[in-house]
Amino acid sequence: MKHLLDIGALSVDEIHHLLDLTDHMAEISARPMPKVPALRGKTVVNLFFEDSTRTRTSFDTAARRLSADVMNFAVSSSSVNKGESLRDTIETITAMGVDAFVVRHSSSGAPHQITRWTNASVVNAGDGWHQHPTQALLDCYTIRTALNRTRGFDGLRIAIVGDITHSRVARSDVQAFTALGAEVTLVAPPTLLPPMVDEWPVTVCHRIDDIIDTTDVLYLLRMQRERMQSALVPSLREYTATYGLTPERAARLQEHALVMHPGPMNRGVEMAVDPSELPGSMVLRQVTNGVAVRMAVLFELLGSGSGLAADATTETPSKDTAKGAS
Amino acid sequence: MKHLLDIGALSVDEIHHLLDLTDHMAEISARPMPKVPALRGKTVVNLFFEDSTRTRTSFDTAARRLSADVMNFAVSSSSVNKGESLRDTIETITAMGVDAFVVRHSSSGAPHQITRWTNASVVNAGDGWHQHPTQALLDCYTIRTALNRTRGFDGLRIAIVGDITHSRVARSDVQAFTALGAEVTLVAPPTLLPPMVDEWPVTVCHRIDDIIDTTDVLYLLRMQRERMQSALVPSLREYTATYGLTPERAARLQEHALVMHPGPMNRGVEMAVDPSELPGSMVLRQVTNGVAVRMAVLFELLGSGSGLAADATTETPSKDTAKGAS
Amino acid sequence: MKHLLDIGALSVDEIHHLLDLTDHMAEISARPMPKVPALRGKTVVNLFFEDSTRTRTSFDTAARRLSADVMNFAVSSSSVNKGESLRDTIETITAMGVDAFVVRHSSSGAPHQITRWTNASVVNAGDGWHQHPTQALLDCYTIRTALNRTRGFDGLRIAIVGDITHSRVARSDVQAFTALGAEVTLVAPPTLLPPMVDEWPVTVCHRIDDIIDTTDVLYLLRMQRERMQSALVPSLREYTATYGLTPERAARLQEHALVMHPGPMNRGVEMAVDPSELPGSMVLRQVTNGVAVRMAVLFELLGSGSGLAADATTETPSKDTAKGAS
Repeated sequence: MKHLLDIGALSVDEIHHLLDLTDHMAEISARPMPKVPALRGKTVVNLFFEDSTRTRTSFDTAARRLSADVMNFAVSSSSVNKGESLRDTIETITAMGVDAFVVRHSSSGAPHQITRWTNASVVNAGDGWHQHPTQALLDCYTIRTALNRTRGFDGLRIAIVGDITHSRVARSDVQAFTALGAEVTLVAPPTLLPPMVDEWPVTVCHRIDDIIDTTDVLYLLRMQRERMQSALVPSLREYTATYGLTPERAARLQEHALVMHPGPMNRGVEMAVDPSELPGSMVLRQVTNGVAVRMAVLFELLGSGSGLAADATTETPSKDTAKGAS
Repeated sequence: MKHLLDIGALSVDEIHHLLDLTDHMAEISARPMPKVPALRGKTVVNLFFEDSTRTRTSFDTAARRLSADVMNFAVSSSSVNKGESLRDTIETITAMGVDAFVVRHSSSGAPHQITRWTNASVVNAGDGWHQHPTQALLDCYTIRTALNRTRGFDGLRIAIVGDITHSRVARSDVQAFTALGAEVTLVAPPTLLPPMVDEWPVTVCHRIDDIIDTTDVLYLLRMQRERMQSALVPSLREYTATYGLTPERAARLQEHALVMHPGPMNRGVEMAVDPSELPGSMVLRQVTNGVAVRMAVLFELLGSGSGLAADATTETPSKDTAKGAS
Repeated sequence: MKHLLDIGALSVDEIHHLLDLTDHMAEISARPMPKVPALRGKTVVNLFFEDSTRTRTSFDTAARRLSADVMNFAVSSSSVNKGESLRDTIETITAMGVDAFVVRHSSSGAPHQITRWTNASVVNAGDGWHQHPTQALLDCYTIRTALNRTRGFDGLRIAIVGDITHSRVARSDVQAFTALGAEVTLVAPPTLLPPMVDEWPVTVCHRIDDIIDTTDVLYLLRMQRERMQSALVPSLREYTATYGLTPERAARLQEHALVMHPGPMNRGVEMAVDPSELPGSMVLRQVTNGVAVRMAVLFELLGSGSGLAADATTETPSKDTAKGAS
């Protein structure tokens, strides 16, 4: 695996492999000294053309736990402002010597394009409405561990609720969840469903109340306030009434059902209950798992051998550790 | 000690303990290799909702000297902009795995509130007009070392001059200085004295000339230019004439007297002399001591055992060092 | 060597020494683990009063490869905004304990001025139209290695094309190239030549076509769009026609000729060919060499003994390494 651009490009075995590796990373993260020397001497560049403290920090934390060096590029301070092309920016950073780019961009396909201009690995951290593969992996990992589903999601009912059209999370999650065997239902008003949704391997419904009693996982998407302005939904109040998780609906969830959200939440809109009072809320578990999943991805792309056995304090480089371990 | 929110919450013994620990940190900082592995694997998050390069850098340097990892969150680039609540921000960062938050916020009490949403330690790096406890500690440490006052400030005369009302530094310093036994005089126009000042354990006067010959420590506060606009003081020129440290006044200071300022200075306003020409100026010593005090606070909150004996180059984690030392 | 402010202050021997040291740094940078402990425990402060991701990142990468700690100060978030003087900013950062300032400033001479307020080393990373000494060193290193000119540039023909007046790169490169023995020709319209150019040790011409067939190195400067607005050049189209590297001109270059540019390029203006299709293009090699040159400079200023022999993973401090090696 050289890049991680699209969850759809991974085989089921590859997804399982990354989730198994995530188990290892979660164990490391739980140590009193949550740091291993696996990627010492490697440089990871966060190249975020869209603002996202949450995702950037998660990758940052993941890289540091593996002892990689991290460079953060915010676009506002970069030469891209001086009219330098994306290609020149990528080639310049590559020439300084980097091992991986973590890219967020508002254009679908930008991370893929970047692979043509660098010999470093590229991780898609969200491109337009297209893909957000590490989000899909962390969501899978969260369901797998919370519902003890190590072998897959056969027969599991997952409902994804909200603005499907503009959501790279929805696109990526549908691919990953169905690949692992889940039965996915999309719940949204017709205005927020993509035109080609008939070709997706999902069921569609327009009322959250139709699935609330039977779903195993309720996945709420963030309701972008901008959508209101463009008249795709009538009002926040009406959205909440029809699609929000209200206390009444929360009471109807099955006892084992999980509630998930990619964050940041709009409290009072799609999340009209306090998630800290829901026993099935995975909201913070998703954040914690996000770091472990990104450790797994970075290690898969950049690591050599295990390099995970040793404690970071021994400062043994991954190569030698790998030799020692083999 | 789990948090440091309010200097008033510390006992005199606890203040002395932190200042003793600061001695140790100052010694480490003076080494050719000013770095120990005491907090290796720990993560400190700087969460600054108000801009302050000075304080942030001081905490940053302190954390790095103890080998902790540091994450900086400026509000402008964080999800707080997307309407995420402070609580969700704190819970999200906590879920990624952090050991301490260093918080600056324009609302009094915000750091205290944050302790309810995280199991990490919280250090108040300035909240509204309320508290700035590490500033109080570094000011105490500066006086203690410069005047050789290891056992306390009994009988020491300290004058704090300027805008008391809007100053968290003044509030915190008054608490710390008087707790250690000093006699504190506030020097300010009535418009810049807080309403309840009668209840403070201080003397009040309105002319710097009344105390300039007899004070042991002259502590000048920064005169915020905004105050002028709100007509709390008539003009910068008049403020300097009545409350500024002019060359004439500097000449009247006792030979051993210290001149202190929390920075950044308004040269020509409250500091109407060049401090580099005052033998008693502690302005830069305060900055240096600020790093050592913050090392002491972070170590007190996050350290286990000593972890300070070894050189950072040995890369021994604090736990093992502690075991070895006990 | 305590500071690096001005390429003209270096003797020819000193330049050769730094380029020899750069060879060593290039070798380190090419390792699978490109990191040595030479500057462990040292702190380098990037103080950029002008935006430059490219140069800042290059210094950042260089410092991290030598295991130094790096602090980045962008002016927008610093106390300089609160009206603090440059002197107070420098003295404050110095008091926290730093070993080197890397300074970019829009005023010629600012880095030199800063040396008066700190005992740390100062590296000029570009001041006004004045100097950019590490750019000159990396350009020399690039020519030296690409044309195998270890002993100097005697008889080498170098043409620098574009806006000479406003270019610190041109000023620094002319000094370095001629010091090493090259014959430098400046190619520019009279409006973009400095008034005193007669006193420079160069030839001047006004048409790129006069030198294109015979130059060994073609050094294109960035054409600042702002110059157009001030009517110093008639139009971008005309500038390209008279001074740009077009495909026709590229075809006329000697086979061994190098094409260089300090970046970021204006594709279609001065660089009217795709440099990736020019065999002699050094554009990316310059970026790579920039890191190695800055490692050499930082090591020369802050290193003690070799400290370069060991691998960073041994975590031996530079001092001990030096002792062990001597």
